[in-house]
Amino acid sequence: MKIVIIGGVAGGASAAARARRLGEDAEIVVLEKGDYPSFANCGLPYYVGGEIEKRDSLLVAPIKMLKERHRLDVRVRAEATKIDRDAKAVTVKNLETGEQYVESYDKLIIATGASPFRPPIPGINSDRIVALRDLNDADRMRKLATSDAKRAVIVGAGFIGIEVAENLVRRGLKVTLVELAEQILPPWDHEMVLPLEKHVQADGVELRLGSSATKFDSDENGLHVTLSDGEVVEADFGVVCIGVRPDSKLATEAGIECGARGGILTSSHMQTNDPDIYAVGDVVETVCAVTGDPTQIPLAGPANRQGRIAADHIFGRDSQYRGTQGTAVVGVFGKTAAMTGLSEKVLRAKKISYQKVYLHPTDHAGYYPGAQQMLMKLLFAPDTGKILGAEAVGTDGIDKRIDVIAMAIQANLTVFDLEEAELCYAPQYGHAKDPVNMAGFIASGVLRGDQPIVYTETLAQDKDLFVLDVRTEGEFAKGHIPGATNIPVEQLRERLAELPRDRKIAAYCQVGQRGYLATRILLQNDYNAANVSGGYRLWAIENGNL
Amino acid sequence: MKIVIIGGVAGGASAAARARRLGEDAEIVVLEKGDYPSFANCGLPYYVGGEIEKRDSLLVAPIKMLKERHRLDVRVRAEATKIDRDAKAVTVKNLETGEQYVESYDKLIIATGASPFRPPIPGINSDRIVALRDLNDADRMRKLATSDAKRAVIVGAGFIGIEVAENLVRRGLKVTLVELAEQILPPWDHEMVLPLEKHVQADGVELRLGSSATKFDSDENGLHVTLSDGEVVEADFGVVCIGVRPDSKLATEAGIECGARGGILTSSHMQTNDPDIYAVGDVVETVCAVTGDPTQIPLAGPANRQGRIAADHIFGRDSQYRGTQGTAVVGVFGKTAAMTGLSEKVLRAKKISYQKVYLHPTDHAGYYPGAQQMLMKLLFAPDTGKILGAEAVGTDGIDKRIDVIAMAIQANLTVFDLEEAELCYAPQYGHAKDPVNMAGFIASGVLRGDQPIVYTETLAQDKDLFVLDVRTEGEFAKGHIPGATNIPVEQLRERLAELPRDRKIAAYCQVGQRGYLATRILLQNDYNAANVSGGYRLWAIENGNL
Repeated sequence: MKIVIIGGVAGGASAAARARRLGEDAEIVVLEKGDYPSFANCGLPYYVGGEIEKRDSLLVAPIKMLKERHRLDVRVRAEATKIDRDAKAVTVKNLETGEQYVESYDKLIIATGASPFRPPIPGINSDRIVALRDLNDADRMRKLATSDAKRAVIVGAGFIGIEVAENLVRRGLKVTLVELAEQILPPWDHEMVLPLEKHVQADGVELRLGSSATKFDSDENGLHVTLSDGEVVEADFGVVCIGVRPDSKLATEAGIECGARGGILTSSHMQTNDPDIYAVGDVVETVCAVTGDPTQIPLAGPANRQGRIAADHIFGRDSQYRGTQGTAVVGVFGKTAAMTGLSEKVLRAKKISYQKVYLHPTDHAGYYPGAQQMLMKLLFAPDTGKILGAEAVGTDGIDKRIDVIAMAIQANLTVFDLEEAELCYAPQYGHAKDPVNMAGFIASGVLRGDQPIVYTETLAQDKDLFVLDVRTEGEFAKGHIPGATNIPVEQLRERLAELPRDRKIAAYCQVGQRGYLATRILLQNDYNAANVSGGYRLWAIENGNL
Repeated sequence: MKIVIIGGVAGGASAAARARRLGEDAEIVVLEKGDYPSFANCGLPYYVGGEIEKRDSLLVAPIKMLKERHRLDVRVRAEATKIDRDAKAVTVKNLETGEQYVESYDKLIIATGASPFRPPIPGINSDRIVALRDLNDADRMRKLATSDAKRAVIVGAGFIGIEVAENLVRRGLKVTLVELAEQILPPWDHEMVLPLEKHVQADGVELRLGSSATKFDSDENGLHVTLSDGEVVEADFGVVCIGVRPDSKLATEAGIECGARGGILTSSHMQTNDPDIYAVGDVVETVCAVTGDPTQIPLAGPANRQGRIAADHIFGRDSQYRGTQGTAVVGVFGKTAAMTGLSEKVLRAKKISYQKVYLHPTDHAGYYPGAQQMLMKLLFAPDTGKILGAEAVGTDGIDKRIDVIAMAIQANLTVFDLEEAELCYAPQYGHAKDPVNMAGFIASGVLRGDQPIVYTETLAQDKDLFVLDVRTEGEFAKGHIPGATNIPVEQLRERLAELPRDRKIAAYCQVGQRGYLATRILLQNDYNAANVSGGYRLWAIENGNL
């Protein structure tokens, strides 16, 4: 058995190691175009910023180890330029010598990954503009960041853009972050990242949202970036991180089928339309684990699992990839955003019916020092309660809650199951009713009809709502939703007569708990009432008051 | 509807709040024997140690709020002394005035909790000995800890014993910790807590394991504690935390059925043998969510959920308690131990067949600063792979992994599902192959026959094993398992002839990964081989070399 693997990072490296463990006699050739196989690409921004000091620590599996321990025939600076499916052979170009040669295969695994997208903006190929795909890029960016450069423009505020911004700020640079969307971190729903935008700005980053770069002019004085509104931003260098595109050209040219987004199509065994050719990692189109729809999500975890599965199938095993959930986390200047499953904007775009609830729990018991409030959102099916997605943003314990819900989504659980989750509790770690339980309680209450809710966005639209603030008079005085009437929940039972019977009452408190109690009181007194999900705190976040 | 709830902490308080939300017109009486309803009993040790400074912060729901917001008739220092089931009434003693009165009920909820067990050891009722059940106990202990006391003896090294020890050390006291079991934290398996024992000792705690207190003598010089080996330990005061017993006497006297462990028996609706009487929290015998067997696990999360469920059922809902998994976490002098499901010792005692694997992952990517190694153990069914339990010990990310596995156990998932878990990954948060995935990979490899394993405990017993150390010569020289032969995995393929064909080869490396590769190489070359689960690191932990 001779296996050729094109690409030696994440998916390719995992496939190679797994293939060796299953086939001690197999000949395994790994062709890596770059200088290093199996490097830690997720660490690159932190190497730029100096959080990771040593370059060598990014070389997860050095060539020597891959060769001696796994007996992999790893060739770096070896570019596959053509796949000849009839001859079952790959043409390889040695980028050192320019020499070309042909390598035959019994099974081929394509793990070419994805490349930073470089749109055809005038001037984008300037020396003053960097992308971040490999260690060489990171070296270049680190050099720029530690030179006498003072200002950088980053185009794209997704994962990498945010991580690069954080790390350039750590290096003392003044950063302008340009993003086409009206928000940073476009995979998250807009309201979820609003607190992060404030946080990033507080760290000195200039945000240019709903904006794009239309021209880059470079000269000895620096880089002049013209934005879509005509303004010119000055910088010493620019970073372009506006997403990646699957590197599927080689495959396409060989007649391997790709999807609409350019990713290689595979079976659940990661097999392409050519049964001797597999594809794994960022280069493949995958399936959304929640909807079953095709999707393109470049993530390291799925790439690694797909690599394993391809190797398994080559050696006659039935392993199958279950699809990608889109579980992701990103550090944002000391805060954290995490998500799993589908966002509200994706659910809307796909016309999937959903319900949502917001909550603001602390990461651990409030009575234990250091508790940090988070913003959490749970999306679920209105009929079955099946969990569709979750997002959380805050300081501590964010990844933990999203991981637990990710596991629940994988198991096809419902919000009713989240009510029953039995999670770790001691006051410095969590709550007797963990945020995951609370999300389940609230969502289940909505589905059971115990707690009808309205959303903050409805308050502005539906003028017929009677908006009731059930917080204390002191809280109300500090700030409230315009037009709201204040009756503290403690007085509500005695003051019911002040409320209209012919209008729907939208009750709110600070985070939702008193609003829930008020809603219960009102409903049981035959008022038409609902709780404002996320309470005043969410409203204030959305309206710039927090 | 008139509901009387006996006990106003955790389960009782949850039941009361839920009942109010469901029944706005209900009369709800909460009888609390102590001074405070709904106080944070899990925070008591940290109040003693000063980590929690303000006493008031432990009063989670002050009486005023329970009365005004929830309209609960909360009575403190009100002890229920008798339940008259025929009359549907409770006799109550006002502990302030001594006055007795009778309170009728339509539905009664018993949430009397559990009390620290005080075995009949001579001298145990001395003023110099404290337990820790309520705020008054905590006040007393805090006063002792901040007096001129210099030495304390703690009897019992379970959750509370460890937490109290940590907090007394924080106060500068010299602590001796006496535990009947041969280990601290008896719910965990012995080998898992060995690193914690070293850690606790390094912080100055004197551990007296496999030991008990047989006599307490108090005089003006202090407390003299005689241990089972005859030695006398000197201290200024003593703390007894050797577990709790359900406070079910009141129920028993009224003919409410209890189980063998003294806990009240209930249906899944938390209903006792009297349909008008419910019981929730630490006073009930519950069902193990994994085995379905009766069990007695005092935990705050389950107590809260049970309270909700009892109130639900009173108001005609079908909510059911699913059983307790035993998910738990404890802070140990800056380290963390967490577990969920069944331990190996419980599986063994119950004669349930199981397999286990050990691993030593870091909490986040090793190339990102601050990664901390943990010890993790996964227990699963050898036939189906169903997850039976997990334990983890370390510094960071411990509760996160146990919570994810807790969710998986609740969903009845298998180790094969853990392989596919899609969890948060960025280098400062986790791994592209998270410890949960790794546990799944290893366990699945064992079940698929890819990776036969042997345990460290077998190495000493089975003298016919050929023990093979596949680490580098340098690692071998620093310490190895006695009798092992060293062939680095990188040389193994060329040196196969040095290995016996007629003996089983137990290959090991530092943590298990190279041992796994060596096992694969040997199996494919027709050797009888297995990987030593947990590797040299586990062996060293168990043998005091680490």
